[in-house]
Amino acid sequence: MVVRAAVVGATGYAGAELVRILSGHPRAKLSMITSRQHAGTTFSDIYPALAGVVNLSCQTFSPETVSEAADVVFTALPHKASMAVVPGLIDRGKKVIDLSADFRFKDPALYEAWYEPHQAKDLLQSAVYGLPEIYSNEIQKASLVGNPGCYPTSVLLPLLSLVKAPFVDLGNIVADSKSGTSGAGRSVSLATHFCEVNEGVRAYKVAEHRHNPEMDEVLSLVAGRTIHITFTPHLVPMTRGMLTTVYVGLKGSVSTQEVASYLGSFFANKPFVRICPPGRFPDTRHVKGTNYCDIGLKVTERTRRLIIVSAIDNLVKGASGQAVQNMNIMFGFPETAGLDQVPFPL
Amino acid sequence: MVVRAAVVGATGYAGAELVRILSGHPRAKLSMITSRQHAGTTFSDIYPALAGVVNLSCQTFSPETVSEAADVVFTALPHKASMAVVPGLIDRGKKVIDLSADFRFKDPALYEAWYEPHQAKDLLQSAVYGLPEIYSNEIQKASLVGNPGCYPTSVLLPLLSLVKAPFVDLGNIVADSKSGTSGAGRSVSLATHFCEVNEGVRAYKVAEHRHNPEMDEVLSLVAGRTIHITFTPHLVPMTRGMLTTVYVGLKGSVSTQEVASYLGSFFANKPFVRICPPGRFPDTRHVKGTNYCDIGLKVTERTRRLIIVSAIDNLVKGASGQAVQNMNIMFGFPETAGLDQVPFPL
Amino acid sequence: MVVRAAVVGATGYAGAELVRILSGHPRAKLSMITSRQHAGTTFSDIYPALAGVVNLSCQTFSPETVSEAADVVFTALPHKASMAVVPGLIDRGKKVIDLSADFRFKDPALYEAWYEPHQAKDLLQSAVYGLPEIYSNEIQKASLVGNPGCYPTSVLLPLLSLVKAPFVDLGNIVADSKSGTSGAGRSVSLATHFCEVNEGVRAYKVAEHRHNPEMDEVLSLVAGRTIHITFTPHLVPMTRGMLTTVYVGLKGSVSTQEVASYLGSFFANKPFVRICPPGRFPDTRHVKGTNYCDIGLKVTERTRRLIIVSAIDNLVKGASGQAVQNMNIMFGFPETAGLDQVPFPL
Amino acid sequence: MVVRAAVVGATGYAGAELVRILSGHPRAKLSMITSRQHAGTTFSDIYPALAGVVNLSCQTFSPETVSEAADVVFTALPHKASMAVVPGLIDRGKKVIDLSADFRFKDPALYEAWYEPHQAKDLLQSAVYGLPEIYSNEIQKASLVGNPGCYPTSVLLPLLSLVKAPFVDLGNIVADSKSGTSGAGRSVSLATHFCEVNEGVRAYKVAEHRHNPEMDEVLSLVAGRTIHITFTPHLVPMTRGMLTTVYVGLKGSVSTQEVASYLGSFFANKPFVRICPPGRFPDTRHVKGTNYCDIGLKVTERTRRLIIVSAIDNLVKGASGQAVQNMNIMFGFPETAGLDQVPFPL
Repeated sequence: MVVRAAVVGATGYAGAELVRILSGHPRAKLSMITSRQHAGTTFSDIYPALAGVVNLSCQTFSPETVSEAADVVFTALPHKASMAVVPGLIDRGKKVIDLSADFRFKDPALYEAWYEPHQAKDLLQSAVYGLPEIYSNEIQKASLVGNPGCYPTSVLLPLLSLVKAPFVDLGNIVADSKSGTSGAGRSVSLATHFCEVNEGVRAYKVAEHRHNPEMDEVLSLVAGRTIHITFTPHLVPMTRGMLTTVYVGLKGSVSTQEVASYLGSFFANKPFVRICPPGRFPDTRHVKGTNYCDIGLKVTERTRRLIIVSAIDNLVKGASGQAVQNMNIMFGFPETAGLDQVPFPL
Repeated sequence: MVVRAAVVGATGYAGAELVRILSGHPRAKLSMITSRQHAGTTFSDIYPALAGVVNLSCQTFSPETVSEAADVVFTALPHKASMAVVPGLIDRGKKVIDLSADFRFKDPALYEAWYEPHQAKDLLQSAVYGLPEIYSNEIQKASLVGNPGCYPTSVLLPLLSLVKAPFVDLGNIVADSKSGTSGAGRSVSLATHFCEVNEGVRAYKVAEHRHNPEMDEVLSLVAGRTIHITFTPHLVPMTRGMLTTVYVGLKGSVSTQEVASYLGSFFANKPFVRICPPGRFPDTRHVKGTNYCDIGLKVTERTRRLIIVSAIDNLVKGASGQAVQNMNIMFGFPETAGLDQVPFPL
Repeated sequence: MVVRAAVVGATGYAGAELVRILSGHPRAKLSMITSRQHAGTTFSDIYPALAGVVNLSCQTFSPETVSEAADVVFTALPHKASMAVVPGLIDRGKKVIDLSADFRFKDPALYEAWYEPHQAKDLLQSAVYGLPEIYSNEIQKASLVGNPGCYPTSVLLPLLSLVKAPFVDLGNIVADSKSGTSGAGRSVSLATHFCEVNEGVRAYKVAEHRHNPEMDEVLSLVAGRTIHITFTPHLVPMTRGMLTTVYVGLKGSVSTQEVASYLGSFFANKPFVRICPPGRFPDTRHVKGTNYCDIGLKVTERTRRLIIVSAIDNLVKGASGQAVQNMNIMFGFPETAGLDQVPFPL
Repeated sequence: MVVRAAVVGATGYAGAELVRILSGHPRAKLSMITSRQHAGTTFSDIYPALAGVVNLSCQTFSPETVSEAADVVFTALPHKASMAVVPGLIDRGKKVIDLSADFRFKDPALYEAWYEPHQAKDLLQSAVYGLPEIYSNEIQKASLVGNPGCYPTSVLLPLLSLVKAPFVDLGNIVADSKSGTSGAGRSVSLATHFCEVNEGVRAYKVAEHRHNPEMDEVLSLVAGRTIHITFTPHLVPMTRGMLTTVYVGLKGSVSTQEVASYLGSFFANKPFVRICPPGRFPDTRHVKGTNYCDIGLKVTERTRRLIIVSAIDNLVKGASGQAVQNMNIMFGFPETAGLDQVPFPL
């Protein structure tokens, strides 16, 4: 079986990355792409890298035409725009994987506190948070998946296996993330102008980033108690990649090796999580272009903390690769289908 | 049919890139890798990006064991080291694709003038220069392929279709190349120390680079007359990619469109050459990780010159991808087998 | 004596660089800065690097207030905007150094062919092209200086000493330039969005760049005959720096050493030109933040060409540093005043 | 008065940066430079950026000749090498500013636990830790200054004003640092090979970096109680700059504004510390090439933590600039002498 897939909002970076992955997917056929801004334009005129490979032109979105053309729809739109189009697709019986923030929250009040009034609240309860390493069963049956943010993915993967561990102090968690610039998207701005990023590192939205409540909600749901973590994102002069260093207070005595085993068991059958051997830590270069999340860790006795470092490609496991992983699960394909890119050695 | 392939010198950048490509090749099985420096070490301990994907360990090279393990051998060694091992493989009936300079020259004197005494001169005549866009027929029948240098590939592809064109002044050619730093290999040196490369551009080996006689010999052979071109390589602060700007004197009147047609015809059935539409020029970002060579061009009446710009990934079309393309041709596989990486939009 | 200097258009990159240099100038006092877009804003709110150092706020431009506040005015505006404001300053007896293209051309028709109708043609004849290494005498007496473009500076400095040399074929010159991204200015655009520049090299405006006729006119005036050169600019993933490789046909026999002597004599008393010793070529890293132009060269007998490589910081010698050098000459200050920045070793 | 200054170990990055700063210092004359590796070589042959500016050649070190040539000696050697040469200079009555770790610790056992046996323990008590923002009085009278490490400088400056603040939980401090690659020095290694750094971020020496006990000792001494902080350094693909994000637990209620005032008072007369206005955070680009430390902060009620971000140029305030600042204090010069570089806007 081959599913027909549409990408709504195909010309942003996450959309284009979906186009790339779906173009090489053995079980999916990219049947339609849409773009408000570039309707009528050939995709490869916008992304010349794909000349000769992707021959589609951008269409104008309408729920009818997209629903007719596709079995599954990836909506890669800004938040707010997504909630305007998703209901019309769900109504027409389509499976939808939404890459915006609009369907990531269970609690509409939390969404509204950080974003804006929600226009499709009724879908929030049935929407599934698309982190396959924990919600695989739910994703399998879902019609609508809210694909996680890049920062939450990089924070949650190292933490989720630990929220029930007896040695962890859930009240004392800091996550410090370093992101490549593609995470800011394709819209031009002074903040992402080459000369304003190159040769510099900076923090931004300190303790105010919208991905913070997203992490908190998922962690709290999994832990069964309210958790707030301290989160600071940073911008790094590179295109792809996200490294997150998580600092967790320890309550009891535990060794690096014991925590590594804990994680190792948790992720035993998860094809995209690689636990680094003791003494090695991840590098975003090692996951570039892939759907992997590499994780390394160390317990420090001196301050009784566990330090976990995770690395993902923000556009793949942090966005479009994870979305395709969700599609694979929803349609019963092998979880790695279309995502078995051999990693680049450099 | 699946061929068993060995990579001799697997831990340099070109070798590692061969490992990457062969690991995803539908018709080849990577059966052995060797490394003098890292014998006994698991490949993914050297290149953690490939953890969980490549499970081979590096072996010590011997002609016997390699010949036993493989049908085709890629030798990715420094020049001089290659000519020491290739004869032993050829003697054992193996197909060999050599990525060093040792088997690129027809004229041993030219090789020796720029390199050093040649130890396997008798193989030079039967060795085929592995640029499939011109020597496809010869490669098909070859036992030994001398895989082109990265600079020659980027210079020859735009020029080869033109050497017989009546409007071109072969006595007046300048090639100005800009290379990413991976071209310098994995051996550490001050010249490739991060802080000595980052945020700078420089020329090096001006009119003295060893790839210059290689280009000249091939051009001369194809043209049927002696050609010398002026060539300057430059180092650019990026990892992968090579852009070459070629300036060709014009003898008669010709338009940009006519030259574009000329190239278009020449490369009509060549799957890895993409001619940019008029007014667009290549960007190394568009070919990164792929075997493509993108070519753009313009005729300027004011100075009666043709300017052609080519872009390749120096590690793929400039080295390991081209080597696999040669293997495909030698074994009758589709030319694009294992090389159909969907390009990254960014 | 201390002159009062104003910068009109202080918030673009060239303007900000003028603010930096003038803030440390021993003979100038930065007395006023203007910005249409940022009027009323403190300069250091726009450029936080200068917090605590530059305490001026941006003013709205008017010829009266600027003329009252300053003895010399640097206009760092887009072309067209400059010619609208410069006459009002000249009329009020101010010395003006204009960083746009508006006063660089002697021939209004040439300007109009590449730019647009000129509104202040009467000033073109008295305006002096601000390349101090050749026009020092004229600059000394000038009221209005047209500060050269960055590309012309990098091309003209290596060429100007040679236009009267008997061994040079002026009909056969190619200039291939590689520029850092700051040359594109501070206005945001997709072409200078971080992810569209990083890890890539590309040519642009091939044989169509507006700096080409500027070079040609100056070269022709100095040579006393019409010269057209072939010029291709390239964009490189770094912030500052410009490397230009010039290829000049040779008519007679000449050695690298002889050409080096030729250049050495020409630039004997020019404090900002450094000729590299034989065998060494410039690196843009070596001139970053300084007003130097480093030049290296080589004669290649094989193709009878002279290859000259020049390196400048496009924002300093290619723009604002050269403008201050011009001011120094106009006011009889030491040519290096305010420009004696010790270069950074890395 | 002008002091004669020598730099021992002038060809490493910290040494070269000392050469740069001292070459432009109004009260110091760079009288001698030494280098074991490059003895006899002209400095500008090693660092061509300084051609025409620094005309010294590297000498071989001997305590006699250096002491004869200089009033103050900067030793920019690897640890262990420093303690071998410093006593001979102190014995000859020289003022010494040592940039290695050898004289930073009060407790020899702590040094020996993290480094190696100490050969000059008797000097440890009189040596002063060269962080002028707290030890200015002691530095004034010191003969020997142990210049702080780059990471400790970036961590201590934001923390030192707070160790006696009632609202701070000294038992709960995390420091997450991001460093440019020049911090690793000029010695080549695979870890600092261009292609192994570019386009990647990674953590290293997690909770094991030798700068950790240095921070802990100084914090403990200032606080009057034992403090251990959790510290992780990261490598970022840029040349210069260090950003440190410090997470401090809060005990009582305090606002961002109150903490800002606290820091503002503490650093009131410190010329090199700039506190960012509320809502703004530092960027390493803003301090590049300068001796500034920019600090921004925010209190987050949700997790009751204070987040402080500091930015320095690791080679200036993190090494050579701070060393010159110490010299200025030792000799009664204005603290900013030779360090008043106008910052680059980009």
